[in-house]
Amino acid sequence: MKVLITGAGGFVGRALVRRLRAGAMPFERLTLIDAHLPDLSADDCAHVIVGDIAEPAVRARALDGGVDLVFHLTGISSAVSERDYALSKRVNLDATLALFEDAARVGSRSRVVYTSSIAVFGAPLPSHVDDETPAEPTLIYGAHKLMCEIALADFSRRGEIDGIALRPSGILARPYLGPGKGAGFLSDIFHAFARNEPFVSPVSRRAHSWVISVERCIDNLLHAARLAPDAMPQTRILTMPALRVTIPELAAALTSATGRNADLVSYEPQEWIETVYGSYPPLTTEHADQLGFTNDGDVAALVKTVLASLDG
Amino acid sequence: MKVLITGAGGFVGRALVRRLRAGAMPFERLTLIDAHLPDLSADDCAHVIVGDIAEPAVRARALDGGVDLVFHLTGISSAVSERDYALSKRVNLDATLALFEDAARVGSRSRVVYTSSIAVFGAPLPSHVDDETPAEPTLIYGAHKLMCEIALADFSRRGEIDGIALRPSGILARPYLGPGKGAGFLSDIFHAFARNEPFVSPVSRRAHSWVISVERCIDNLLHAARLAPDAMPQTRILTMPALRVTIPELAAALTSATGRNADLVSYEPQEWIETVYGSYPPLTTEHADQLGFTNDGDVAALVKTVLASLDG
Repeated sequence: MKVLITGAGGFVGRALVRRLRAGAMPFERLTLIDAHLPDLSADDCAHVIVGDIAEPAVRARALDGGVDLVFHLTGISSAVSERDYALSKRVNLDATLALFEDAARVGSRSRVVYTSSIAVFGAPLPSHVDDETPAEPTLIYGAHKLMCEIALADFSRRGEIDGIALRPSGILARPYLGPGKGAGFLSDIFHAFARNEPFVSPVSRRAHSWVISVERCIDNLLHAARLAPDAMPQTRILTMPALRVTIPELAAALTSATGRNADLVSYEPQEWIETVYGSYPPLTTEHADQLGFTNDGDVAALVKTVLASLDG
Repeated sequence: MKVLITGAGGFVGRALVRRLRAGAMPFERLTLIDAHLPDLSADDCAHVIVGDIAEPAVRARALDGGVDLVFHLTGISSAVSERDYALSKRVNLDATLALFEDAARVGSRSRVVYTSSIAVFGAPLPSHVDDETPAEPTLIYGAHKLMCEIALADFSRRGEIDGIALRPSGILARPYLGPGKGAGFLSDIFHAFARNEPFVSPVSRRAHSWVISVERCIDNLLHAARLAPDAMPQTRILTMPALRVTIPELAAALTSATGRNADLVSYEPQEWIETVYGSYPPLTTEHADQLGFTNDGDVAALVKTVLASLDG
């Protein structure tokens, strides 16, 4: 099995590489590509490419010798995309479509696992999100993700690739970035408890967010890679299961898990963060659930898994 | 008002040019562009460009001096697109996105009227199609149209253009093509009655199709161009109203309108034509109806309008 991971140097990419190297899945060759890969060393079976996936020559190198499985994780972030349409178009749209075309050409119906995003739904969200909720993005990032989902489904319909798009929620815990970084607060509360430092929540006690631990997210990406061809969802697109949590729920579970004091947490809600990252309605993901994709189960399990990943 | 029409040499484009030249809308300059424009002569206010809209230099010429209103009609047909992904991507996707970008750059929130297609819905259709029906295309053509709808909505959200996408049904009557040309039979029955020649229907008596006369289609494109900015639909995407008709209904109305004998019509159903072009469920287009878009009213009016357009 020849495996390619784009965005291998990112937060999710690194976690996926660790799992593959730890034996999560047998492979004959592992090709890692990213614009920056500072500490991902090559080994006997890994081939590391530092380059821009939007460049045809870079993609040609990455796909040289064929490919059986692609994890396409590369992407320009939502915030940067909204400020720089041309960059999002180049990477999130054009390079992604080109990668699908290239994978179709060099592979034999390669499995392509594409990380889309819940940003395809746009804002404001309806009172409940499920598999029937229409995708009406309100960010460049979400629009480009949705366009790629449609292309992936069409390439799959034609048998050119065997693609599946997953829409993850907030993945925890990203590296500590410090206050004021949008959704970063959902990760930062874990870092605060781990360090026994105060945490100021930029959302209120009643704000709800959708989250998943990076380990369960990787489980889901691997599950998507392993699904039998005849078990693939007909639409090719799934919202990844997630837990819907509040900061008080996370704080209580973190107190219980670390033995530290819940008084670490105070609240200074900021309206825009509450609106963009703290206003998520109930979520059901029936299609994904039926196919065996999972969330973290409950807040206690989420907290335990995320705290363990901080140590790693 | 500076107006640009792409695909001006096509069936719909010619009809639109005729209506604009006949005074449907005041304009200061009319630029017509198509790969082939055999008999569209320039006049005092019309500027004719024969060229490929996928070429940046051609678009630059077309948009030189700015633009206030674009009718983007150019497209590679559904059948050709399905055989030639690269061509559909080049014209139906890449050139369309580039045109939106260029219009955003040279215009000041230009109105862009984009002809999408009911092909965005894919096959098989559900038992009823309305404004809530999810778009899940099953043709390259439909996938590329849907991707452009999403881009148009996003450009409009950001105030770069003021776009509206309309999804027309079968537009009647296209020039006579002869039997075996897919949806051509819906036009050919009009040509047959006009010429008093026999018509062999490739679909059964119970097959239903969605149709609109080219004149009502042009009415709707012009209505989209004239909508006040604050009356534009929030989603930016509308299914154009259509009538759902059978061949016996068309034959009866044609008999009544022409005085010719309904015996002209016989039936030799072909399964694939019945499936692809004769299996349309009831259609409701509430959003478009509320905004003043219209179909032909009834079969008798449709037939009268289409017969008159054949004479033109």
